[in-house]
Amino acid sequence: MTTHDERVRRSFAKQAFMSTLGAELTVVEQGSVEIQMPFSASLTQQDGFLHAGAVTAVLDSACGYAALSVAPTGCEVLSVEFKVNLLAPAVGKLFVAQAHVKRAGKKLTVCSADAFARTGDKQKIIATMLATIINLPNPAAR
Amino acid sequence: MTTHDERVRRSFAKQAFMSTLGAELTVVEQGSVEIQMPFSASLTQQDGFLHAGAVTAVLDSACGYAALSVAPTGCEVLSVEFKVNLLAPAVGKLFVAQAHVKRAGKKLTVCSADAFARTGDKQKIIATMLATIINLPNPAAR
Amino acid sequence: MTTHDERVRRSFAKQAFMSTLGAELTVVEQGSVEIQMPFSASLTQQDGFLHAGAVTAVLDSACGYAALSVAPTGCEVLSVEFKVNLLAPAVGKLFVAQAHVKRAGKKLTVCSADAFARTGDKQKIIATMLATIINLPNPAAR
Amino acid sequence: MTTHDERVRRSFAKQAFMSTLGAELTVVEQGSVEIQMPFSASLTQQDGFLHAGAVTAVLDSACGYAALSVAPTGCEVLSVEFKVNLLAPAVGKLFVAQAHVKRAGKKLTVCSADAFARTGDKQKIIATMLATIINLPNPAAR
Repeated sequence: MTTHDERVRRSFAKQAFMSTLGAELTVVEQGSVEIQMPFSASLTQQDGFLHAGAVTAVLDSACGYAALSVAPTGCEVLSVEFKVNLLAPAVGKLFVAQAHVKRAGKKLTVCSADAFARTGDKQKIIATMLATIINLPNPAAR
Repeated sequence: MTTHDERVRRSFAKQAFMSTLGAELTVVEQGSVEIQMPFSASLTQQDGFLHAGAVTAVLDSACGYAALSVAPTGCEVLSVEFKVNLLAPAVGKLFVAQAHVKRAGKKLTVCSADAFARTGDKQKIIATMLATIINLPNPAAR
Repeated sequence: MTTHDERVRRSFAKQAFMSTLGAELTVVEQGSVEIQMPFSASLTQQDGFLHAGAVTAVLDSACGYAALSVAPTGCEVLSVEFKVNLLAPAVGKLFVAQAHVKRAGKKLTVCSADAFARTGDKQKIIATMLATIINLPNPAAR
Repeated sequence: MTTHDERVRRSFAKQAFMSTLGAELTVVEQGSVEIQMPFSASLTQQDGFLHAGAVTAVLDSACGYAALSVAPTGCEVLSVEFKVNLLAPAVGKLFVAQAHVKRAGKKLTVCSADAFARTGDKQKIIATMLATIINLPNPAAR
């Protein structure tokens, strides 16, 4: 396991909200991260679909950790902003968020991410995010 | 209580995710909605601040319900997309999302919303959203 | 030349702003469009780079025409909203915007687009857009 | 005239694209800027309305200069990203973009801006922007 990998996994483990959502970090590579979250009735909106806020939360964490996976040593990351397009009702058994670094600068990293709903062997795209993340010196790491 | 009011409150009550977040609908007016959510350790990111996804979820619901409060009878609403800027770390005892309709068209409504962190009598802005919502005929209401 | 092709080319030819920018439609396929624009001193910002507004204009037209290329017959399209990330200074001889349909619904189409700066045989990405486009019945076509 | 004022006016004067658009800087205050642009047939899209790219260009400049009006001495600003919602067809004799700083941090400034179409004494909102701007040390100013 690389240092980048460890840094991402250690930070993810500290995100209580990911555990509240039942989300798991399933892939960590240099510049890309995947998070999976099973359907839960506790995460739904008025029609029984997954709430856009739950989808956004895993997309945001996936983008942040994709950025962290390429950030300089001793940095941590913070989301500056993101935009989400909701492409289809979030209906499925399992939700998968895949984020990739689009461009990594010294201070700012831009990531894009797609969210998919899976049921059996069928998968469809339900949302897409474009996000800006900032590198911050991590006092604890210095 | 007006019909619009009822429609918003009835739909909010069906959003299981809002209850998971501990969020409450505190104001419903024609074209504006307020949602409050107390801090909870179960909603945090790696630094112990509120996760951006939790802030976004209440901003999204607030925008959706502001749109619903002015939607034609027999319509329901769905978020098309939104953008969030995270303006300051989400540190506080209570989080307040206030959404307003910016422009309501026949099909699409654009809302803006701000999120504030309150501790005692101090309040600071922590995030802002610009959102597009679509009116859909509600089969159940026809 | 297909009907879709013609519809896009005819509409593009009517966009006076594209001609003011010196922009040309270079590729039209089902679901994807490319527009090229040479550098011009009349399109610059304070540092002599291409103005973000000029880059955005071609990205917006590219997204709109990608959406039109898959829209039902007798529809025209209108941009609902877009987000642009500016990834690098727009320095180059030629600028190329490539847009693709990400998801086409009955009413709304979501497109993503990248803009590149080319100088000789070198190309680098300078901006990326995520856009929402609406299909409208075209009175002239009925 | 204050220093901030001068800095904004000097930079605006160097934006050749603003002059190509016929845009003028009409208000500069600490934290807010107004730009006006008369209708011109050279800036239109396929229906003869102002092209979204032209509207976006003046909104972007207005946000950038609102940010510059509060930036530390010796800094210049660059747009990181923005989102625009197009609220109504851009039909009018004169277009007015008004930008305000929403939050100014050390590195990043978030601005919002509205664009209005004016004809005689009637004005209607046609677009709204939410933008992120970065402060950069200006080598020329040091």
